[in-house]
Amino acid sequence: MAKVGIVMGSDSDMPVMAKAAEILDRLGVEYEMSIISAHREPEVFFEYARSAESRGFKVIIAGAGMAAHLPGMCAAIFPMPVIGIPMHTSSLGGRDSLYSIVQMPSGIPVATVAINGGANAGLLAARILATSDDALLARLKAYSQELKEQVEAKDRRLQEVGYKAY
Amino acid sequence: MAKVGIVMGSDSDMPVMAKAAEILDRLGVEYEMSIISAHREPEVFFEYARSAESRGFKVIIAGAGMAAHLPGMCAAIFPMPVIGIPMHTSSLGGRDSLYSIVQMPSGIPVATVAINGGANAGLLAARILATSDDALLARLKAYSQELKEQVEAKDRRLQEVGYKAY
Amino acid sequence: MAKVGIVMGSDSDMPVMAKAAEILDRLGVEYEMSIISAHREPEVFFEYARSAESRGFKVIIAGAGMAAHLPGMCAAIFPMPVIGIPMHTSSLGGRDSLYSIVQMPSGIPVATVAINGGANAGLLAARILATSDDALLARLKAYSQELKEQVEAKDRRLQEVGYKAY
Amino acid sequence: MAKVGIVMGSDSDMPVMAKAAEILDRLGVEYEMSIISAHREPEVFFEYARSAESRGFKVIIAGAGMAAHLPGMCAAIFPMPVIGIPMHTSSLGGRDSLYSIVQMPSGIPVATVAINGGANAGLLAARILATSDDALLARLKAYSQELKEQVEAKDRRLQEVGYKAY
Amino acid sequence: MAKVGIVMGSDSDMPVMAKAAEILDRLGVEYEMSIISAHREPEVFFEYARSAESRGFKVIIAGAGMAAHLPGMCAAIFPMPVIGIPMHTSSLGGRDSLYSIVQMPSGIPVATVAINGGANAGLLAARILATSDDALLARLKAYSQELKEQVEAKDRRLQEVGYKAY
Amino acid sequence: MAKVGIVMGSDSDMPVMAKAAEILDRLGVEYEMSIISAHREPEVFFEYARSAESRGFKVIIAGAGMAAHLPGMCAAIFPMPVIGIPMHTSSLGGRDSLYSIVQMPSGIPVATVAINGGANAGLLAARILATSDDALLARLKAYSQELKEQVEAKDRRLQEVGYKAY
Amino acid sequence: MAKVGIVMGSDSDMPVMAKAAEILDRLGVEYEMSIISAHREPEVFFEYARSAESRGFKVIIAGAGMAAHLPGMCAAIFPMPVIGIPMHTSSLGGRDSLYSIVQMPSGIPVATVAINGGANAGLLAARILATSDDALLARLKAYSQELKEQVEAKDRRLQEVGYKAY
Amino acid sequence: MAKVGIVMGSDSDMPVMAKAAEILDRLGVEYEMSIISAHREPEVFFEYARSAESRGFKVIIAGAGMAAHLPGMCAAIFPMPVIGIPMHTSSLGGRDSLYSIVQMPSGIPVATVAINGGANAGLLAARILATSDDALLARLKAYSQELKEQVEAKDRRLQEVGYKAY
Repeated sequence: MAKVGIVMGSDSDMPVMAKAAEILDRLGVEYEMSIISAHREPEVFFEYARSAESRGFKVIIAGAGMAAHLPGMCAAIFPMPVIGIPMHTSSLGGRDSLYSIVQMPSGIPVATVAINGGANAGLLAARILATSDDALLARLKAYSQELKEQVEAKDRRLQEVGYKAY
Repeated sequence: MAKVGIVMGSDSDMPVMAKAAEILDRLGVEYEMSIISAHREPEVFFEYARSAESRGFKVIIAGAGMAAHLPGMCAAIFPMPVIGIPMHTSSLGGRDSLYSIVQMPSGIPVATVAINGGANAGLLAARILATSDDALLARLKAYSQELKEQVEAKDRRLQEVGYKAY
Repeated sequence: MAKVGIVMGSDSDMPVMAKAAEILDRLGVEYEMSIISAHREPEVFFEYARSAESRGFKVIIAGAGMAAHLPGMCAAIFPMPVIGIPMHTSSLGGRDSLYSIVQMPSGIPVATVAINGGANAGLLAARILATSDDALLARLKAYSQELKEQVEAKDRRLQEVGYKAY
Repeated sequence: MAKVGIVMGSDSDMPVMAKAAEILDRLGVEYEMSIISAHREPEVFFEYARSAESRGFKVIIAGAGMAAHLPGMCAAIFPMPVIGIPMHTSSLGGRDSLYSIVQMPSGIPVATVAINGGANAGLLAARILATSDDALLARLKAYSQELKEQVEAKDRRLQEVGYKAY
Repeated sequence: MAKVGIVMGSDSDMPVMAKAAEILDRLGVEYEMSIISAHREPEVFFEYARSAESRGFKVIIAGAGMAAHLPGMCAAIFPMPVIGIPMHTSSLGGRDSLYSIVQMPSGIPVATVAINGGANAGLLAARILATSDDALLARLKAYSQELKEQVEAKDRRLQEVGYKAY
Repeated sequence: MAKVGIVMGSDSDMPVMAKAAEILDRLGVEYEMSIISAHREPEVFFEYARSAESRGFKVIIAGAGMAAHLPGMCAAIFPMPVIGIPMHTSSLGGRDSLYSIVQMPSGIPVATVAINGGANAGLLAARILATSDDALLARLKAYSQELKEQVEAKDRRLQEVGYKAY
Repeated sequence: MAKVGIVMGSDSDMPVMAKAAEILDRLGVEYEMSIISAHREPEVFFEYARSAESRGFKVIIAGAGMAAHLPGMCAAIFPMPVIGIPMHTSSLGGRDSLYSIVQMPSGIPVATVAINGGANAGLLAARILATSDDALLARLKAYSQELKEQVEAKDRRLQEVGYKAY
Repeated sequence: MAKVGIVMGSDSDMPVMAKAAEILDRLGVEYEMSIISAHREPEVFFEYARSAESRGFKVIIAGAGMAAHLPGMCAAIFPMPVIGIPMHTSSLGGRDSLYSIVQMPSGIPVATVAINGGANAGLLAARILATSDDALLARLKAYSQELKEQVEAKDRRLQEVGYKAY
C-alpha cells in the first residue's frame, strides 16, 4: 500500500513533480500520483484528501503554482504531514506560489520546500517515513554518501584539469 | 433575503470586514456576516460555499490574510462573483495575502481589491448588484457625489487658511 | 446592445485581452472592444468612460501595463463594475501593473484579476452579469463542469500511462 | 502669477506636500496649492489640468499614494513638466505609489522623486524654472552652499566632541 | 528519550521557539531545547547535529533569522526531518530568513514553515511523529477539533451580538 | 550651443540612450552625447559635471544601471535639472538601478523616469526647455497630437477587422 | 596613524557607525571618523577620498542610506578595500541602500555588510588588517572565543531554568 | 603558497568563479580553487575551512546560490576576510543568494559583492592583499588606469562616429 500521495493541480506541474517520484522510486518508497485541482473540482479534491488516511498515506506531496491552495487545503483535511512545492511562475518567479504555500496560519502547517524543489520534496517525504523505518534511513544515508562522492569527483577533476579546461 | 455574504477566516480580520458591512448598510444592501475558516473547519466551509446560492447570495466578500485561501476556495464552489480582500500582514505587509488571492489560475476568478480594502469591497459588491438594480445605482451615484463634495470642501478650506494652518 | 466594454491602452495588450473576448464569445455575452489610451488621448478616454452607461455597458474590462491608470480612471467615471487586468512587464514582471490597478484608494474599487489574467476577466464579467441572468448562470456552470472533466481526463491518462510516459 | 501648481489627491498627503511649498517659499517661487482627486472628482481634475497652462503654470508638482494616478494623468494633459511624489504607504512602503508614478509608458513622462520626497520635488521645480531664470539659479546655488556648510559644521562638531558625546 | 530537538541560534528567537515547545507540551511530545549558534560556535553546532540521531531525535526544529544557516546546516548533517522557522527581521520582514531557509539546493531539504511560525513547527513535528504513533495522531485530531470549535464559537458570538458589538 | 547633455556610464546603455537622442532630434533640440563613467574615471566625470553649465547645458540626461550613481552625482554638481534613466538589469530587473537613482536624499533631486525609459527622458528634457521656449512647446503639442492619432488609427483598424484578424 | 577611515553622509547614521568604531576601539585599531556627504559637498568628498591613501588609511568604512553613493564613490577613488554599510530606511527597509551599495559594476568592488551592520563592518576592517598583523589576528580570535562563550552561557541558563522562566 | 582560496558549492557556479580567478591571474595573485559543498559534504567543508589559515590563505572567495550558506560558514571558521558572491538564480534572480550571504548576524561578517560579481570578488581580494603589498597595489592602480582608458576610447569613438553608427 502506497505511503505517499503525490498530487498536482495541473499537468503543467509534471516535470517538477516527476522529480519527487524519481527520488521515491530510487529510495524504494511506494507512492500514488494524481492530478486533482482544488479549484476546478473541489468535490473530487475533498474526497481525495478525506480518504487519504484510509488509503494508507502517511505523507502527501502537493505541488501548485500562483495562488497555490492545493497544499494548504490538503493540510486542512489530512492529519499527517503535507509537503508543499511552490511552482516557478513566469510573472512573479514563484514568489506567489511560495507565499501561498508557506505562509499558512497557525494550526495548519505545510512543510514547504524550495521553488520547483521536486527532488527535495521526495527526499523530505523519505526522511519523514525514515523516522520509523531503519532500512529506509540506511538508504537515505547511502544516497547522501553518493551526493558527497559526486562533489568530490568534480573537485578532483578541477584539480586535474584546472578551471580553464573544466 | 440577504444578497451578499461577508465571510472572514478569523475575527482578527473584523476591523477591515466591518468597513465592507458599513458601506452596505449605508447603501441599503442586505448581507450576512460569518466567521468561517477554510483551514480549521473545511467541512463547515464547504457547506457554506455550496449553500450560498440557495440562500440567495449574489456576491460573496471574503477576507483573509497570509496564505489566504478563503476567497479562492469560495470562487471554486460559488458560481457568482467572489470579492477577495487581502489582509495586511506584519511580516510581508500583505503581499502574501495579495498574491494568494489575486493570482488565481485560469477558470476561477476572484475580484481582488486593495490590501485592507474593506470599504472598496463593499462598494464593488454594490456596483455588481447595481447592474440590475437602478435604485441602488442611483444611491451609488449619490455616494460618489458625496465623496466629490468632501474633497471640494477640503480644497476650499486649504484656499481659505493656507497650508500652514491647515 | 453590448453589455461589456473591453478596453486596452495599447494594441500590444491584444493577446491577453483576446482571451477575455473568447470567453465572452463562448458564453454568449455581447461586448465591444476598443483601443483607447487614457494617457495619449485623455479627451477620447473621458468621452468613452462617460458614455459607457448610456451605451448599455454593465461591466468594463480594462487592461493596462506599467503605470496602469486605465482601469482606475474608468472606475472613477463609470458607476458599475470595472475589472482590471494587470499586464506582465519585462522589468518588474507585472508588479508595477498589479499595484497600479489593485491598490485603489477607498471609494473607487477596481475588481483586479491575475497578471495577464484575460480569461478570468471574461469569466468575472460573466459571473457579474449572471447575478441577474439565470441562463448565463447555467452556461457558467456548464463551463465549470467542462473544466472539471478536463482535469479528470488528465488524471485518468496519468493513471493509465504513468508519469514517465505522460 | 504662480508658476508652479502643487496638487495632492488627499489632505493626508499634506505633510509631504508642505515640504515642497516650504522650499518654494524659501527660494522665492510663487505657487498655488490645491487638493484635487483624479479618482473622486474626475471632471474637476480634468478642468484643473486643462487650464493649468493658461493660468501660467510652468511646472506641476503632484503627490499621490497607492495606485497613484494623479501625476500621470496630469502629465497626460499638461504639456510642460510634471513632478510626481510617491507617498509612503503602510502596507507596501510606497512601492505601489512609486511604480504607479515612475513606470509611465512611452510618450508621457513624469519626473519622479523619492518616496515622500516633498523637498526634492520643490527643488526640482526650482531647478526647472532656473533654466531660464538666472536670479533663481543663483538662489539655488546659495541654498546648495548652505547644505554644504551644515554638513561641514556637523563634521567639525564630531571632530571636537568625538562620536560618544555626539 | 526526547524525540524532538528544538534549537535556536540566539535567545532573541525564544518567544517564537517557545510556541513550538508549548504545542509539543500540549500534545505530550518530549523535546530538548538548546541555544546553539552555527556561526559563533561551529564546533559545538557540528557536535550537536552529528550526535542528534544517537540521542534519539527523530525531528529537529531549528529557528534562525537574517542569513539563517542553522536549519540548512542541521539538514546537511542530521538524516531525518529538519523543520526551519524563519524569524521576522526588522529590515526585510523575514524575507531574508525565509529565502535562506526554504531555498535549499537539491539533496538537502528543510521543511519550512511561515515566518515566525513557531506553533506550526511544533504541529508539523507532531504530524511527522504521528506517522508511526496512533495515539499521537488521535491527540492531533482532537487538537484540530478544538480549533474548529473555537472558530464556531466566534461565529456564534458574531451572530448573537452583530459586528458592531463584537 | 547644445542645451542638453546626454551621458551614460557604459556603451551597453546605448540602445536606451539613443531613444532620448532620437526624440530630441525629432523635436529640434540640440544635445551632446558622451560616455563617461563616474566609477571608472571619477576625475573625468567631475570635470564633465563641473563644466556642464558653462558649456550651455540646461538639462543633463544620465543613464546608468545596477548601483547607478551617475545621475545622482551629476545632480550633486550640476545646478539645473538632471534626468535619470534606470537601466534594466538581468538579476533584479532594474529595481537596483531604479532605487539607486530615485531614492536621492533631501537636497539633491534627480528627475527619474521609467526603467529603460529613454524616450520619456528625451521628452521630459524637451518639456523642461519648453517652459521658456514657445516654439518647442508647440512642437511638443504636435507630437502629442500624433501619438493620439496613432492610437485612434489602431482603434479604427480594430473596429474594421475585429480582434481575431487584428 | 589611523589605518581605518570611517565616513558617513549624515549624522543620522551615527548610531550604526558608532558600532563599527566600538569594535575597532575594542580590538585596538586606530581610526578617524568623519561626516562627509558625496551629494552635498562633492568637492570635500573628492578631496577626502583622494587623500585617504596618503593619510595612511588601509580601509574605508562608508555608511549611507537610500540612493547610497558614498561607498561606491569612495571605491572609485581609493584603491584599497571599501566596506559599505547599507542603512535601514523607513520606506524600503534598506533594500534601496543595499542595492545601491552592493550592485557595483565590474571593476569597482564594495565589500558590503548587512543592513545596519555597523559591528560587522568594524570586524571586517579588522579581519582585513589582520591579514598582515598577527597580533590583531590573535585579538580577533579572542573576540570570537568570547562570542562563543556568551552563547554557551545562554544555553546553560536555558538548561537550568527552562524556557518558561528564561 | 597561495594566498587566496576560491571555493564554490557546485560546478554550475564555475563561469562566475572563473572571473575571479582571471582577475587574480592578471594581477599576479596566487590562489587555489576548489569545489566543496557545505551541504553535501559538511565534514570535508569543515576540514577545508579549519585548515585554510595553516595553508597560507589570507582571503577566501566563496560563491554560492539559493540558500547560500558556504560564504557564511567559511566566515564562521576562518578568521580572516571571506568574500561572498551571490549567484543569480532563475526564480528569484539572486535575491535569495544575496540575502543568504549579506545578512550575516553580528560577529561574523561576509564581504559581499554584486550578484554574479566574480570579477569584483577577485579585485576585492587583491585590494585586501594590497593593504600590505605595495607592488600589488601598483598593479591594481595600473588596472584602474586601463579601465579608465577603455571608457575614454569608447567616448572618442562615439564623438567620431555618432550614436547612430556606434
